[in-house]
Amino acid sequence: VRAITFSDRLAYTDSCPTPRAGDGECVVAVLMAGICSTDHQITKGYMGFAGILGHEMVGRVVEGSADWIGKRVVCEINCVCRACDMCHAGLSTHCRKRTVLGISGRDGCFADFVIVPESNLHAVPPVIEDERAVFVEPLAAAFQVIRQVPIESRTRAAVVGSGRLGLLVAQVLADTGCALEVIGRNPRTLEWCDKKGIQSRSVDDVLPKQDWDVVVECSGSPEGLGMAERLVRPRGTIVLKSTYAGPSNSDLSSVVVNEVSVLGSRCGPFADALNALSRDAVDVSTMISGICSIEDGLDAFEASARRDTIKVLLKIGAE
Amino acid sequence: VRAITFSDRLAYTDSCPTPRAGDGECVVAVLMAGICSTDHQITKGYMGFAGILGHEMVGRVVEGSADWIGKRVVCEINCVCRACDMCHAGLSTHCRKRTVLGISGRDGCFADFVIVPESNLHAVPPVIEDERAVFVEPLAAAFQVIRQVPIESRTRAAVVGSGRLGLLVAQVLADTGCALEVIGRNPRTLEWCDKKGIQSRSVDDVLPKQDWDVVVECSGSPEGLGMAERLVRPRGTIVLKSTYAGPSNSDLSSVVVNEVSVLGSRCGPFADALNALSRDAVDVSTMISGICSIEDGLDAFEASARRDTIKVLLKIGAE
Repeated sequence: VRAITFSDRLAYTDSCPTPRAGDGECVVAVLMAGICSTDHQITKGYMGFAGILGHEMVGRVVEGSADWIGKRVVCEINCVCRACDMCHAGLSTHCRKRTVLGISGRDGCFADFVIVPESNLHAVPPVIEDERAVFVEPLAAAFQVIRQVPIESRTRAAVVGSGRLGLLVAQVLADTGCALEVIGRNPRTLEWCDKKGIQSRSVDDVLPKQDWDVVVECSGSPEGLGMAERLVRPRGTIVLKSTYAGPSNSDLSSVVVNEVSVLGSRCGPFADALNALSRDAVDVSTMISGICSIEDGLDAFEASARRDTIKVLLKIGAE
Repeated sequence: VRAITFSDRLAYTDSCPTPRAGDGECVVAVLMAGICSTDHQITKGYMGFAGILGHEMVGRVVEGSADWIGKRVVCEINCVCRACDMCHAGLSTHCRKRTVLGISGRDGCFADFVIVPESNLHAVPPVIEDERAVFVEPLAAAFQVIRQVPIESRTRAAVVGSGRLGLLVAQVLADTGCALEVIGRNPRTLEWCDKKGIQSRSVDDVLPKQDWDVVVECSGSPEGLGMAERLVRPRGTIVLKSTYAGPSNSDLSSVVVNEVSVLGSRCGPFADALNALSRDAVDVSTMISGICSIEDGLDAFEASARRDTIKVLLKIGAE
């Protein structure tokens, strides 16, 4: 079967062995998948992963229990043990023994088929087309921000980074009615914000005054945290979403002196993301810069890294 | 009058002009002062401060309003405007226009006299001797930790760093009855912990398993945060107390992946510290490695930087 793999280098193959499901697992035929910055970071050494890449997808269950077979699904990416201290504490996304789809210890979804635990599945309502359903995973990660930090209409929130994740976070925050500004480098995505009625500003035009209540760092770069520190008010909150290979080089003394809370934030609630897409509260369609076949996956990766693209999708299966 | 000053280099002088109090301020004759790691950091360029050093002290009001004159006092270090957005929000320790005793924009207490706003004063009960009262400021900073993070008897808390601040934080945490371990480099101070019945361990003997609920980083060094990240559990809390000149060089990806909360923590409640010293809940007396005269202040600074000392005090006035 076809797949995009990484080990030393990114490669396309059409001769991967057909994967087999284990206990409690099912086989999902992948319909569409999304390329994420984490995929790019992995190709730079992040997580030391080798295998089939990809963790954002929508597919159809082709092998598994009667409850799921034939259903169109999205899939949570953390595959957990249900036995460790974290799982017992209700923090199963932090399972000590977890494998993570296309990120750690488990093949991902840039392939014709992917194996996932059935307990990770969520059925996709018909109203959400494949091109939108593929955004559920990153959109859930965006919703995690408002699970971790109370955002009210009088909250002043800034998003640092106007990339794929930044634009999702911005929309989730905008939906709360808070005072919002997106700060980024890319004129195209800042313009996209303007069209959505979300205030935006080029990072070059920012005069940071440490007066934002909440700053969500989605830049995906080591410089983002420093900018967030210059924006956030004393006793304010920085939500860190960016992961990248290597150190941040940040001077954290302003975090101490200003008693800032820095909250790491990763995966989030799929139900909230499915709900938002169902009621059209978040626009992902206009974030799609291109849809490529899996055979053109390497080109799609390159396109996805360019500044003039937002989201690049892989169309893998057809129905 | 006598003073220890810093600008380019540390110096002792006996010919400082006698300071004069402004509106709402008073003159305190300093009885005793404590040397803190922040003082050492300032001599390495932290905060870019120049002037009379020192922010930990006990003294007697010799000039001011009738309410305060003659009283033995300790003094909060943030001198605030009561007019900015932070002051109005009840966050006056984060006043936008603050000056800070011996740290920023205002002469400190390593001198015969110091000028402070009367609203910063706290009277010291007779039961707290000068040698103990001088610990109120750093002890208040230690109490800030339990104001920011709920600590219960079932909380597992680690303190990274067994220096002056680490030992105060450890005692404050020990008083909550939580499960506690101090992790440090200095055999002398780790032994001090053992004597107090506080579990301690050399940093070389730690096998970090990311299983501590709360880790308080008091190491005063850029390596401390990395150790804290290796100790704290997923969704746990790191309290950052260390400030130092320069970057931390930390890889913050574990903060994101493990959704750790990193809380900056600075000055704390003087009332809690006075209360703890009054009821003898915290032992500071055995932390005193030496008491020097202000004339020997430069030697005291050097001694204070050595690993075989904990706290070095300056005896400045006599009664």
